[in-house]
Amino acid sequence: MSGLGYDLDRETALVPLGEGRFAVDVSDCWNIGDNPNGGYLTAIALQGLRSLGHHQDPISVTTHFLRPGSGDCPGELSVSTIRAGRSVTTARASLVQDGRQRLEVVAAMGDLGRVSDGGPSMTIAPMDMPPPEECVERDLLEQGVSLFISSRVDLRVHPSMSEAGASDTAETRGWIRFADGRPPDTLAAVLFSDAFAPSIFALLGRVGWVPTIELTVHVRARPAPGWMLGRFVTEDLRDGRMVEDGWLWDAEGTLIARSRQLAMLLPTNAD
Amino acid sequence: MSGLGYDLDRETALVPLGEGRFAVDVSDCWNIGDNPNGGYLTAIALQGLRSLGHHQDPISVTTHFLRPGSGDCPGELSVSTIRAGRSVTTARASLVQDGRQRLEVVAAMGDLGRVSDGGPSMTIAPMDMPPPEECVERDLLEQGVSLFISSRVDLRVHPSMSEAGASDTAETRGWIRFADGRPPDTLAAVLFSDAFAPSIFALLGRVGWVPTIELTVHVRARPAPGWMLGRFVTEDLRDGRMVEDGWLWDAEGTLIARSRQLAMLLPTNAD
Repeated sequence: MSGLGYDLDRETALVPLGEGRFAVDVSDCWNIGDNPNGGYLTAIALQGLRSLGHHQDPISVTTHFLRPGSGDCPGELSVSTIRAGRSVTTARASLVQDGRQRLEVVAAMGDLGRVSDGGPSMTIAPMDMPPPEECVERDLLEQGVSLFISSRVDLRVHPSMSEAGASDTAETRGWIRFADGRPPDTLAAVLFSDAFAPSIFALLGRVGWVPTIELTVHVRARPAPGWMLGRFVTEDLRDGRMVEDGWLWDAEGTLIARSRQLAMLLPTNAD
Repeated sequence: MSGLGYDLDRETALVPLGEGRFAVDVSDCWNIGDNPNGGYLTAIALQGLRSLGHHQDPISVTTHFLRPGSGDCPGELSVSTIRAGRSVTTARASLVQDGRQRLEVVAAMGDLGRVSDGGPSMTIAPMDMPPPEECVERDLLEQGVSLFISSRVDLRVHPSMSEAGASDTAETRGWIRFADGRPPDTLAAVLFSDAFAPSIFALLGRVGWVPTIELTVHVRARPAPGWMLGRFVTEDLRDGRMVEDGWLWDAEGTLIARSRQLAMLLPTNAD
């Protein structure tokens, strides 16, 4: 596990209050606009779930975003075990700020350090992608809001996707890593699954606010050090609700995580 | 809502015990082998969540399968609201039998009867598929276990996929409907997302037991009457854990649901 030398570990540090409750200082350094990124808030919850036992890897994590979080604001995290098994621990977490619940998380935690010897395997290969140095820094893609998170996450998008609304598909591809050099782990894989700009912007431009209702991430392996590669696609939008799929690979081309989120597409003029 | 004239409604009927608790008789008519199908157990949980308020459609439902359920055995369902909003109600449900929790469900319930007037839309079209009368009854595809569920669900698979292990991809396509003529609804869409044989069988044959750890279904629209069309694909299997993706369309070709499940692949000789 990482120590507190890195931003993410310091900014998700939990102070035990007993009975599965923890105090946490929710940082505003992971904000997108006025509110903390949902991947960062989920990472806070996962730190609590890691504290429950010996399973450190989120193999399935579902977050329901009940209300936006508040940066630079204390919070209280509550965690409880639903079932502790030999290979999987199922647990839930709840993050409250100012007396209002912001997140509900349910996760299956496992051990991705144990790899099988043989048995059938199948995987999804990464797509072609120019190296990070030929990609475009995220700041150029800004969503019309302040990206405090760019001090924490270094994101480079495919050069053909650097302008919102310039693509004929709702797809984003890019490289991502922590700005301070923290090596990626399975917690980072969850955070990174929610740190890219919504892929719908590539097709439609900055259409408005895209609040996530629910995000589920399946982490498949522990990542190697270095950049991670992400692909995010929206193929399915109706009645103001969209489903976005994501894939993350590590620097060695291993499939690390798959994500799916249900989000609302709210027109800018309805903000 | 449907009355109690249909099997599913009768076999998911809840008797209120107060304080969000319900008694339920879990039927063995939805068994696959010795245990009730997970989609059926999730449908019981959704009946409880529907009772919470005005939102009747599961727009996102995540089930963690903690232990197999027991058919022909009473159960107690507990439901509680996490957040009740205007457009979304988030809630959880827990199913206990013989003092042991079998399911943990967290869902966002909404109203898919309200369709938007205009706004951008994208969808995923159904694949080519011969009509149901040219497809193969599921009994021919039996998984080496008794399929009590075939008295409840009428399933016809693509003729090229009628033999386990005969395909060069881990894909299943088929038509599905209730055996007793019950019209499909959004609850059925969730149940049907877990009622097909695992797609990995098409590639590898009857490799063993494939217990689901977690299933998430996003329901996108209310289905038209008639058959529903399903496609299920596994592209991602490592260290004995696999991710299966599913799509369901209604008889008019409208995308109704998308599903993803994390399952374990246990060798037959480890049963």
